[in-house]
Amino acid sequence: MKIYGDKISGNCYKIQLVCHLLKLDYEWVDVDVVSGGARTPDFVAKNPNAKVPLLALDDGRFLSESNAIINFLAVDSALLPKDVFTLAKVQQWQFFEQYSHEPFIAVARFINKFQGMPESRRDEYLSKHEGGYKALQVMEDQLQQTRYLVGEAFTVADVALYAYTHVAHEGGFSLANYPQIQRWIKDIESLDNFVAMGR
Amino acid sequence: MKIYGDKISGNCYKIQLVCHLLKLDYEWVDVDVVSGGARTPDFVAKNPNAKVPLLALDDGRFLSESNAIINFLAVDSALLPKDVFTLAKVQQWQFFEQYSHEPFIAVARFINKFQGMPESRRDEYLSKHEGGYKALQVMEDQLQQTRYLVGEAFTVADVALYAYTHVAHEGGFSLANYPQIQRWIKDIESLDNFVAMGR
Repeated sequence: MKIYGDKISGNCYKIQLVCHLLKLDYEWVDVDVVSGGARTPDFVAKNPNAKVPLLALDDGRFLSESNAIINFLAVDSALLPKDVFTLAKVQQWQFFEQYSHEPFIAVARFINKFQGMPESRRDEYLSKHEGGYKALQVMEDQLQQTRYLVGEAFTVADVALYAYTHVAHEGGFSLANYPQIQRWIKDIESLDNFVAMGR
Repeated sequence: MKIYGDKISGNCYKIQLVCHLLKLDYEWVDVDVVSGGARTPDFVAKNPNAKVPLLALDDGRFLSESNAIINFLAVDSALLPKDVFTLAKVQQWQFFEQYSHEPFIAVARFINKFQGMPESRRDEYLSKHEGGYKALQVMEDQLQQTRYLVGEAFTVADVALYAYTHVAHEGGFSLANYPQIQRWIKDIESLDNFVAMGR
């Protein structure tokens, strides 16, 4: 299988991390998002929504949306709970990530680190901090109760939230007041076969 | 089980629609979002992310995020495919909905219909149309190839996208150029046990 992705993207990194944790073979195809690599006719034919990451199976089928991809890859592994309610909780955290976390923390990071903080987006950048800190507090409260986001076991919910949380400082966020998040980041980085972002 | 929701919200309506289609019993608890009903201490104790919808099971457990809830309720029904790749496609459409559709179409609708288009949000409202129409085009292209979003069978992916698409006009969107979406809306509204939004 091939993974179309950009190494600066946390959404793409989620797929890479799951592949390493589960020792899945893949071919990485670099797509440069900043220069418009996901909007070329060739790429849009593969993913009409013009976004990375994109998974291409060997039989020619495609799957987009980072969390849908990691859930697909993790089927029948310890990263995807079998209990119906626990699995629903994994999805709860993943939808939280895409709606209440990523649009604040990942977008602030993109403006700051990859666009070099253009003056035209400064107000938008600053406006992202309230929502981003609110999301971090929701995570902190959960991680005070459980080791990982859905309980004592590491799951793809943690993959989804780790991706941009561990680089939140690149979007101007401080984790100083979130000791449980700091502890959780260390736990994840100690997992067997862990791979760092950008590799 | 109880559903905490607001009848003006498409995200809440998704749960109600699935319950009707599957003939599941539930108690509806009205939460007035506009007046801050989801931000009271009592509600935040149930959902720390301070959002509806929220599902409360009889055993005291809670589940939030509309698409996680409908996937949970649809387990073992025809609305949730069992094939691993088809199920991944359902999730792909649901993450698409929350990231590339709802933030444009539902937010434009909220500003226009429920906030009465305040001058302070007019630019934001107008800026939502490009992204919303892009999402509608992605849906139109798929619905030209298949009857429903993931194939010939109706699934919770269609529930997720129907919720705000069928009221897109309330956000200033015209579906005139999207004949397949119009056909798909009629197909959904003809389903046995279909219930309209706001009931």
